[in-house]
Amino acid sequence: MKKVGVAILGLGVVGGGTYKILTDKKEFFKKTQGVDVTVEAVLEKYVERADALGIGKDKVASSIEEVCSNPAVDIVVEVIGGVEPAKTFVLKALMSGKTVVTSNKELFAKHWPELEEKARKMNVGLFFEASCVGGVPIIRTLIDGMQANDIKSIKGIINGTTNYILTKMALEGSTYEEALKEAQRLGYAEFNPTADVEGFDATYKLSILSSLAFNTKIAIENVHREGITSITKEDIAYGKELGYTIKLLAVGKNTDKGIEVRVHPAYVPNGNPLATVNDSFNAVHLVGDSVGEIMLYGRGAGALPTGSAIVSDVIFAAKHQTYYYTYFKNNEKGVKETNFTDDFTSQYFIRLSVKDLKGVLSKISGVLAKNNISIKEAKQVAEKEGVVPMVIVTHECAESSVNKALEKIKATAGVISVDSVIRIED
Amino acid sequence: MKKVGVAILGLGVVGGGTYKILTDKKEFFKKTQGVDVTVEAVLEKYVERADALGIGKDKVASSIEEVCSNPAVDIVVEVIGGVEPAKTFVLKALMSGKTVVTSNKELFAKHWPELEEKARKMNVGLFFEASCVGGVPIIRTLIDGMQANDIKSIKGIINGTTNYILTKMALEGSTYEEALKEAQRLGYAEFNPTADVEGFDATYKLSILSSLAFNTKIAIENVHREGITSITKEDIAYGKELGYTIKLLAVGKNTDKGIEVRVHPAYVPNGNPLATVNDSFNAVHLVGDSVGEIMLYGRGAGALPTGSAIVSDVIFAAKHQTYYYTYFKNNEKGVKETNFTDDFTSQYFIRLSVKDLKGVLSKISGVLAKNNISIKEAKQVAEKEGVVPMVIVTHECAESSVNKALEKIKATAGVISVDSVIRIED
Repeated sequence: MKKVGVAILGLGVVGGGTYKILTDKKEFFKKTQGVDVTVEAVLEKYVERADALGIGKDKVASSIEEVCSNPAVDIVVEVIGGVEPAKTFVLKALMSGKTVVTSNKELFAKHWPELEEKARKMNVGLFFEASCVGGVPIIRTLIDGMQANDIKSIKGIINGTTNYILTKMALEGSTYEEALKEAQRLGYAEFNPTADVEGFDATYKLSILSSLAFNTKIAIENVHREGITSITKEDIAYGKELGYTIKLLAVGKNTDKGIEVRVHPAYVPNGNPLATVNDSFNAVHLVGDSVGEIMLYGRGAGALPTGSAIVSDVIFAAKHQTYYYTYFKNNEKGVKETNFTDDFTSQYFIRLSVKDLKGVLSKISGVLAKNNISIKEAKQVAEKEGVVPMVIVTHECAESSVNKALEKIKATAGVISVDSVIRIED
Repeated sequence: MKKVGVAILGLGVVGGGTYKILTDKKEFFKKTQGVDVTVEAVLEKYVERADALGIGKDKVASSIEEVCSNPAVDIVVEVIGGVEPAKTFVLKALMSGKTVVTSNKELFAKHWPELEEKARKMNVGLFFEASCVGGVPIIRTLIDGMQANDIKSIKGIINGTTNYILTKMALEGSTYEEALKEAQRLGYAEFNPTADVEGFDATYKLSILSSLAFNTKIAIENVHREGITSITKEDIAYGKELGYTIKLLAVGKNTDKGIEVRVHPAYVPNGNPLATVNDSFNAVHLVGDSVGEIMLYGRGAGALPTGSAIVSDVIFAAKHQTYYYTYFKNNEKGVKETNFTDDFTSQYFIRLSVKDLKGVLSKISGVLAKNNISIKEAKQVAEKEGVVPMVIVTHECAESSVNKALEKIKATAGVISVDSVIRIED
């Protein structure tokens, strides 16, 4: 039976889960996969983490060099996260001829070409299923399941923390702050939640997923990013009334105007399958010109779900050791030059406070019409102390037109404030 | 660039879709996949089908031998369906050293070990993604995405025809016969719909999917099978009232008592994601001990969705020509001896007509209690001409207990008939 040695860099949540699966299931893998996988080394600066997992001192390496020069190690699992020292470690492992399996979306989104080049040069594998959407095999689906498709769009809920917060706000009427606090208490959100709530994490993942979907490199700088920190109870409540659920969506579209990639909160109509993806669950919806619609759904994070993706890559690499994941080099393989567009179209929900509906509505309608925006629905909500809340839902129109119109609307007599502008994606 | 030649056996719906994708996207595959795929031959007894697709006479083979001896053909796509002549053709192709890609669930479910043995002997590929759930990459997910998991259950809506019929009955109040007729008119159901409506098609697919999920061969004879022909408007209506949607479910579970595999209509609670899978869409829900829940959703049939799966296998085989899909031989790899159980547990919905509720309910309750079945809900529906319709929902209990109890209940004084017994699966 084929014997394969693994080193794990980092014994945090995902590293611990990976270690547990690999050791608890050693016999299972021998039986079902025909490979004998052993964790030969770990690298972790907090020694107590290795102790807590019952890892003997002989397996705790003191440096990346020790891991790389260990002939018993075939596959290096990097689950440290962040750019450094992960990047240096991964490059060293690749250059030592080790296949690398990583869950590191930030590293991958920022330095994929460089890592790819080294892997290619050394003819070793570079696997990253765990970098996006936890245990859901979205990377493998995009690479090995969708080849027959020119993918038209990818839409996903790909950050568990924000989905937990938004679900809590929707189901329990919590404020953003309350829901965030609860998420932190439960370990779903970090003490410093910026990477999640400001959409950075989703941006890294969308950059990776849309690069695969559209066969071209999409850098994080190309992704329009908005977080969820300004979403209010009112936004949730108004959405409910209109039949929408608010989600932090990652959207990639390959349109005639170019590729658009964006992460932002959006209203999803309740009939859309993405609207019912709750708590820390994730889902990715694809439209391909052959396959039509498909959707994958599952846990986007956590020790065992993410460990499941890591171990799936480890087993795959153990069974098929030749270099496998090919990066799509722009032009080199003849893929079209990438055109990006940030003037995407959407429907828009606009919530305003006005002094008096009469007159104001006709002025606003005029501004919208001048900007080629037609109104699908406009309604006034109960007046409170001389302030009339009003919501407008537009038909599909260009982002740039909406921005222009909003400038004018803000300056219109009778308009107190524009309180919310939320895109509607179905 | 690697050149790969393909032969297509059968130019029906799926064969036509496959031909179309492979020829229309020749340049796309060169650019995005780095392989140059050409359809070198087709085999089809209805010559007009080749004509309709614009296939030149020089590419229409007159026999399987001609295909097998054509050195330009590397990969043979079998999309004839049914056991013969497909089986003979596939075996000849494998024995000639061609890699085979098939969408043939019946052939695969019935003769997988024999096909596998030949492929292994000849060291060629044998791919079958298109055999189950159309363009949804469920086979690849089970083989290459779930290795870290002891899969506990698989539940799916894996037949588009029956799902179309049941959706139509649910949304439009049609009878089974009306919905079937419409499905036939639209081409969703065959003139002879038996394979779909009696659950054979779903049984073939469940046998394949559960073999992969549970790492052991599950023959179609092991699958308990019931179709949808006896589902009435009343069953749909009562389900609606209780918050259930009726679906033809394929269920596989790996329990302490053994493996249970079954295809039958079931009530699915409306909150369950499977309840909203409508029309000809399919979905498969898995529970793994590492990954937790995951679900894949998409079109389960059709020229292009199924063609998408075929072409995905063709491209994969073209890029990775070594033998790939390994069959899980019982014991050879040490997988546990398979224990099957047909005494599965479920909740049950029982609908009866009784003469008079008083007295009868207490007798029925007594019979159920004696068989260790506890009642979750029992209610009487409006009386019509001396007949009182009555529904009982049980807690989870054993199928064998329910069968025993039903015998007694049918013989109980005051019971006119047992009208429906439907399992509830959440």
